Amino acid sequence: MIARLLCWMIALTAASWAPGALAEDGYDLWLRYARTDEARSADLAAHATIIVAPGASPTLNVAIAELQRGLAGMTGVAPALSGTMRQGALWLATPASAPALPGETAGLGGEGYAIRSIEVDGKAVTLIAANSDLGLLHGACHWLRLAQSGASLDRLDIRSAPKIRLRLLNHWDNLNGTVERGYAGQSIWDWWRLPDWKAPRYTDYARANAAIGINGTVLNNVNAKADSLTAPYIAKAAALADLFRPYGIKVYLSVRWTAPMELDGLRTADPRDPAVAGWWRAKADEIYRAIPDFGGFLVKANSEGQPGPQDYKRTHADGANMLAAALKPHGGIVMWRAFVYAHDNPDDRAKQAYADFRPLDGQFADNVIVQVKNGAIDFQPREPFHPLFGAMPKTPLMMEFQITKEYLGQSTHLTYLGPLFKEALDSDTFAKGAGSTVAKVIDGSLDGHRLTGIAGVANIGADRDWSGSIFNQADWYAFGRLAWDTSLSAEAIAREWAAMTFSPDPKVVEPIVGMMMGSREAAVDYMTPLGLAHMMDTGHHYGPGPWVSDLARPEWNPVYYHRADADGIGFDRTDSGSGAIGQYAPAIATRLANPHTTPERHLLWFHHLPWDYRLASGETLWDGLVRRYDRGPAYVAGMQTLWASLKPHIDARRFAQTEAFLTIQHREALWWRDASIAYFQSLAHRPLPAGSPAPAHDLNWYKTQRFPYAPGHS
Amino acid sequence: MIARLLCWMIALTAASWAPGALAEDGYDLWLRYARTDEARSADLAAHATIIVAPGASPTLNVAIAELQRGLAGMTGVAPALSGTMRQGALWLATPASAPALPGETAGLGGEGYAIRSIEVDGKAVTLIAANSDLGLLHGACHWLRLAQSGASLDRLDIRSAPKIRLRLLNHWDNLNGTVERGYAGQSIWDWWRLPDWKAPRYTDYARANAAIGINGTVLNNVNAKADSLTAPYIAKAAALADLFRPYGIKVYLSVRWTAPMELDGLRTADPRDPAVAGWWRAKADEIYRAIPDFGGFLVKANSEGQPGPQDYKRTHADGANMLAAALKPHGGIVMWRAFVYAHDNPDDRAKQAYADFRPLDGQFADNVIVQVKNGAIDFQPREPFHPLFGAMPKTPLMMEFQITKEYLGQSTHLTYLGPLFKEALDSDTFAKGAGSTVAKVIDGSLDGHRLTGIAGVANIGADRDWSGSIFNQADWYAFGRLAWDTSLSAEAIAREWAAMTFSPDPKVVEPIVGMMMGSREAAVDYMTPLGLAHMMDTGHHYGPGPWVSDLARPEWNPVYYHRADADGIGFDRTDSGSGAIGQYAPAIATRLANPHTTPERHLLWFHHLPWDYRLASGETLWDGLVRRYDRGPAYVAGMQTLWASLKPHIDARRFAQTEAFLTIQHREALWWRDASIAYFQSLAHRPLPAGSPAPAHDLNWYKTQRFPYAPGHS
Repeated sequence: MIARLLCWMIALTAASWAPGALAEDGYDLWLRYARTDEARSADLAAHATIIVAPGASPTLNVAIAELQRGLAGMTGVAPALSGTMRQGALWLATPASAPALPGETAGLGGEGYAIRSIEVDGKAVTLIAANSDLGLLHGACHWLRLAQSGASLDRLDIRSAPKIRLRLLNHWDNLNGTVERGYAGQSIWDWWRLPDWKAPRYTDYARANAAIGINGTVLNNVNAKADSLTAPYIAKAAALADLFRPYGIKVYLSVRWTAPMELDGLRTADPRDPAVAGWWRAKADEIYRAIPDFGGFLVKANSEGQPGPQDYKRTHADGANMLAAALKPHGGIVMWRAFVYAHDNPDDRAKQAYADFRPLDGQFADNVIVQVKNGAIDFQPREPFHPLFGAMPKTPLMMEFQITKEYLGQSTHLTYLGPLFKEALDSDTFAKGAGSTVAKVIDGSLDGHRLTGIAGVANIGADRDWSGSIFNQADWYAFGRLAWDTSLSAEAIAREWAAMTFSPDPKVVEPIVGMMMGSREAAVDYMTPLGLAHMMDTGHHYGPGPWVSDLARPEWNPVYYHRADADGIGFDRTDSGSGAIGQYAPAIATRLANPHTTPERHLLWFHHLPWDYRLASGETLWDGLVRRYDRGPAYVAGMQTLWASLKPHIDARRFAQTEAFLTIQHREALWWRDASIAYFQSLAHRPLPAGSPAPAHDLNWYKTQRFPYAPGHS
Repeated sequence: MIARLLCWMIALTAASWAPGALAEDGYDLWLRYARTDEARSADLAAHATIIVAPGASPTLNVAIAELQRGLAGMTGVAPALSGTMRQGALWLATPASAPALPGETAGLGGEGYAIRSIEVDGKAVTLIAANSDLGLLHGACHWLRLAQSGASLDRLDIRSAPKIRLRLLNHWDNLNGTVERGYAGQSIWDWWRLPDWKAPRYTDYARANAAIGINGTVLNNVNAKADSLTAPYIAKAAALADLFRPYGIKVYLSVRWTAPMELDGLRTADPRDPAVAGWWRAKADEIYRAIPDFGGFLVKANSEGQPGPQDYKRTHADGANMLAAALKPHGGIVMWRAFVYAHDNPDDRAKQAYADFRPLDGQFADNVIVQVKNGAIDFQPREPFHPLFGAMPKTPLMMEFQITKEYLGQSTHLTYLGPLFKEALDSDTFAKGAGSTVAKVIDGSLDGHRLTGIAGVANIGADRDWSGSIFNQADWYAFGRLAWDTSLSAEAIAREWAAMTFSPDPKVVEPIVGMMMGSREAAVDYMTPLGLAHMMDTGHHYGPGPWVSDLARPEWNPVYYHRADADGIGFDRTDSGSGAIGQYAPAIATRLANPHTTPERHLLWFHHLPWDYRLASGETLWDGLVRRYDRGPAYVAGMQTLWASLKPHIDARRFAQTEAFLTIQHREALWWRDASIAYFQSLAHRPLPAGSPAPAHDLNWYKTQRFPYAPGHS
C-alpha cells in the first residue's frame, strides 16, 4: 500500500512537469483509457483477471492488445493472456476456437458479437463470442467502451451486429496533401513518403475506426486525380490496406472517369468502348494483385465539372456497370454518387438527382450501389431527406453524410451532428406506407437488398486532435456508431462519447451532453432557420453571404435558394413552383403542398411566403425568422456559461481550446445573425421585433468582408 | 527500495501499453529530459537540490519552470523554489537580484550568462549569473544541456554570450497554411484560428528556440501577401509576440512592396512618394501599438517577380531606407534581401546580387541590414561563399542559411547541415587580409558594425516531429547553436544533439555523429559533385534534372549551370568566362583563375574543363565525377548499416522512421547517380570506370519521370 502510494506520488510529480506529449491533446480519441479511481480500477481488474483467447490471427492479436492496452491504462496493469480459465477471465471465443460454444453466435454474422456474463466450471467469466476474430475485436471494443464509461460489467447480456454492410469513411483528400473541405490540417495520408514510411498514426486511425465499427475507407477525394490509379499510388494504397487489414477495414479508391485517357492515351472514356472496358478490367486486375481484398471504386461523374459517361451520351448506369464488370471477378463494388446537377439544366437543383437517377432504377449491376447525400442540395445545416430514398426500390442506395462541417461552422463551432444524422435516418419516406424510414432503405430491409452501405465524409486531418477540435471528434464517433446501429439515439451516443472523452462523472457528462444536443439546432437558427439553405459565402462557405448573386451558375448563389424580396421569402417547390414536392411519396407531398401542414423546420425550403405569413406561434414569418436568428447566438452564450462551469473538471488544455472555440463561435453566430437580418431587413423593410437589437454594422460592411485564406477550399 | 522497484515495474507496464502520446515521436526535440539511470539521477538531484532565484518576471518564471520540468523528467522530482541557500542549490542571479555578485556578469551583455560552481557560506552551489533574466534563461538551458548530455556538473566555469545580435528564423509560411519549400506538413501558424486560439505548440516552439538562443522569428513568407499587414493579421502576429516575449523572441514580418497600393489603393509604391512613405509610417505605428517590441521588416524586392523600388527606377537603398525611416522611431530594423536576379539581365546569375548591391555600400540607413544567402546562387548542396561578404564594409550584412532542405534531400535524406553552415562561416573573404572570415563579417567584428544578424529559413512545420524527420531537427539545432557561437564545431554540435535526442551513451552518440558528419558530403557526391550546382528537376527541385533546358528563364535551367557538352563540363567564371571570380578579393581571385589552384570541391563552379582534365588524384575529370557519384550512395548504404547496428539502443518508433527514410535516401541517391551519369555519359561518350555499374535505366526513363505532387513547392 505504501509502495502504491509512493508510486502515485512519483507518477504525479512527473506528470505535472512532463513534456507536452503527456498532455490531454485529443490524440487518443475514444481510446484514452484514463486511469480510474481505486474502486473502479479494482472492479475492472476483477472483471479482467486474465484474457483467454484461443487461436491466432492478426485480428485476434489486435483485439487482445487493445484489451491489454485499455486495462493497463485504466488500472495500471495489463491482464496476461492465459490458456487456463480463471475467475474473472475475459474469454474471447469463436465457434472455431470453442466448439462447445452453445449457439451464442447465431445471427451475429461476420462482424457482430455477444458479450455475456457466464459461469464456466463455477468461475464467473465474461464471454465475448463471435463468428470471426473481427467480431471479437468489435466485442472487445464494446467491452472497453463499457469499462471507460463507468458502466456495470456484471450480468452482461449483449448481442450486437450491424445491419448495414458497408460502413465507410470518404476522405476528400488530395494527393498533394490538402483536404477539400478539411478543417483539421493536412491529409493524414503522407502519400509522398508512402509506402516506405508507414506513420504510426495509420494504425491508430485503424484502431479508432475499428472501435466504432467502420469497415472501409475511401482514401482519396471524389474529385479524383487519375494518378491515384498509377502503379506507385496503388503501392501506397496497398501499404495502407496492409496496415488496416487486421482491423477489418478495407481500402477503396475514388476514380477519375477519364483515367484511361489521361494515363494511357486512350482516345475515349466511352463506357461502351471495348478498349475502355478492357483498360478498367486490366486496372482492376492490377489493383487486386496488390490489394487482394480491395473494396472497390467510388465515382463522382458528370457532376460539378467532373467527366463521366454522359459526355458520351451514356447513362450513369452504363458507366457504373462497366466499372462494376471490371471489379466483379474480384468481389469489388462500385459506389456511384447521385450528387449531380448541371449548369445547363434550368430545373430546380433539388430535383436534378432524382430526375437523373430514378429512371435508371433496375438498370444497375448487382455490385453497384448508388450513394445519395442525406438531402437534395448539399449537406446544409438542415435539409429534408433526399427524395431518392424510397424512390429506387430496385437499386441499393447508400447514405452519404458529411462529417466534416463544411456548412456547420467548420473547425470551431460546437455543432454536434448526431441529431442531424438521426433526423435523416428517422425520416419516413412512406415508400411502402408509414414506417418506411430512410434507415430501412439503406439497411436494405425495406426493399430486400443485401448490398447496403453508409458513408461519412471524414473530418480527419493531420491535426494532433484529428478533427480540428475535441468536439468535432464526436461527429466522427456518432457517424460510426449510427452506421453500426441506426437505432441508437444521438443523445445516448453523446453520453458515451463524453464519458470516454472527458470523464464518466455525471457532473461532467450531463452538462456536456446538454450542450451538444441543442447545438446543431442553434447553428440552424443562426445560419439557416425555417428551412432556408445555402446562405454561405462564396467558395469557402465560411460565414454569411445571403446577398451573393453573381456566381457563374445560378444554383451557386444564395439568392437562388431564399428568393427573398419585398413581399416574402422562400423557394416554392409546390406545384405552383418547381414541383419538387412531387418527388416525394403522395402521403408526404400532400402535406408539403400546404405551408400550414409543412413542418416549420422545412417551411421556406418548400414555400415562398409573405413576410406577414403567420407561423404556428401566431407571430409573423418576419418576426419568427428574427427570433430564430436571435436564439442561435443566445444558445451559444449558454454553452459558454455551461463550459465555464466545467472548468474544475476538465484538463486545462482541452478546457482552453473549447473555451477559445466557443468565443469564436459566439462571435460568428452573432455575425451570422446580424448579417442575415441586415440583408433580409433591407428587402422586407420591417422593424425588428421588440428586444431584438439592430445589427452591429450596416449591410455594406457585411457584404465587403473577404476571407481569402479560409481553409478547406482546395 | 522495494517501493521504488515496484514503482518502476508499474511504470514500465503502463508505458508499454500506453497510448501513442507516450511514444518517442520527436515532439520534445532537445527538451526531452528523459529519465536517467539511478546514479546520474542522484548526481543531478545533488546539483539541483533547490532553485534560488530572487526576483519575478515572466522570463525568470519560464527559466525556473524549464529547470523544474527538466529535472522532473530526468530525476522524477522537480526541485523546489527556495529563498534560502542550501548545499547543491541552483542559484539564478542578476546584479539586480544579487548586488553582491562579484563582477560575474561583466561582458555578458543582455543575453549572455556565466555558470560557475562556487561556494556560498560554505555550501557548494551552482551559480547561473547574467545581466538580465533572459540571460538566466539561456544559462538555465545551457545547464540543462549539460545535464542531458551526461556532462559533469562539477567545477563549472562557463561564460557565454552571443556575438551576433539578431539570430532569426525565417518562416516561408503562407497565410493559407502551406509552406514554401516546407517538408514537414502545414505551417505551424494556425493563422485562421489566431488570435483566439493560441495552440500550446507555440509555447513549445518558443521553449525550443530559446534553448538554442534564437531571438527572433519572421512569421511569413518572403514572397509576402499584403494581407499580413491588415489589422486582423497584425492582431494574430501580436498574439504570437505575446507568447514569445518571455522567451526573448521578437516577431518580424515579411512585407510586400506594393502593400500600400493593394490595401489602401495608393497609386504608386514609389519610395520617394510622400504618400507611400506616410503609409508605411502609419502602418509601422499601427503595428507597434499592437506589438511594442516588434522587430521589423524582411523584404524580398525586385526578385523572382516580386515588386520593388526598381519598378520606380529607385535603388534597393531607396526602398530600404524609406521603410527604415518608418520603423526607426520604434527601434525597428529592415532586413533587405540581396537575393536578386533579373530575367532581362544576361549576365551570370551568380554575379547579379553583387553587381546590384556593392555600388550601394554606404547608402543604407543605420537600421538597415542586408541579408545575403551563403552562396551566390541558391542554397545548393555546396556553393563558394557569396562574394558580397567582405565587399560591403560600410553595410551590415546578415547571413541567410536555408535550414529546410530544398536542395539537400527534402524531408527524408539524412544530410546534416552543420558542416555546410560551418564551411560558409569559416570561409575566408581576405577582405582585410587572411582571417577575414565570413563569420567575422556577419558578427560585425571585421568592419565594426553593431547591427549584426544571421537568419535560417526554417524547416519547421505542423508535423508532430516539427521538421519532417528526427534528423532534420539537428539542422534547426545546429543553426541556432552556430548563430549563438560561430566558433562551435559542427561535430561538437552533432554530439550534443545526438546525446539529447537519443542517449548520452557513447555507443549511441558516436555512430550517430559519424553518420551525420559525412552525410552532407555524401549528398554533394550524389547530387552535385565537384562544384556542380542546381541540377535539380524543375519547380519542386526534387530529384535529378540535369537535362532540363526548356524553362522560361535561362538561369532556371540546370544546363545553364553545368554547360556540359561533348568536350567538357563546368561554368567558366574566370576572365575568359563570366568573370565572376573578379568579385572576390584578389588573393582569392588569383587562386580561382587557375583550375589547378581552385579547390576541387568548387572546380566546375568556376571552370569549364575538358572531360579528360586531370584531377589532383591523377584520374580524369570524367572518371573523378563518376567516382563521386558512386561514392554518394555507398555512403548512404554505410549509414544504413550503422543505423541497423543501433537497433538495440533506439526506441522502436524513431528507429523505424530513420530506417525507412534511409531506405528512401539510398534509392534516391542511386537515382541521382544513375540519372546524372546517364545524362552526362550521353554527352561525354566515355565508358564508365572499371567497377562502376551502368545506370539502371536508359536516359529517357529518367527524363520522363514526373512528380506532380512533390511537396513544398507552393
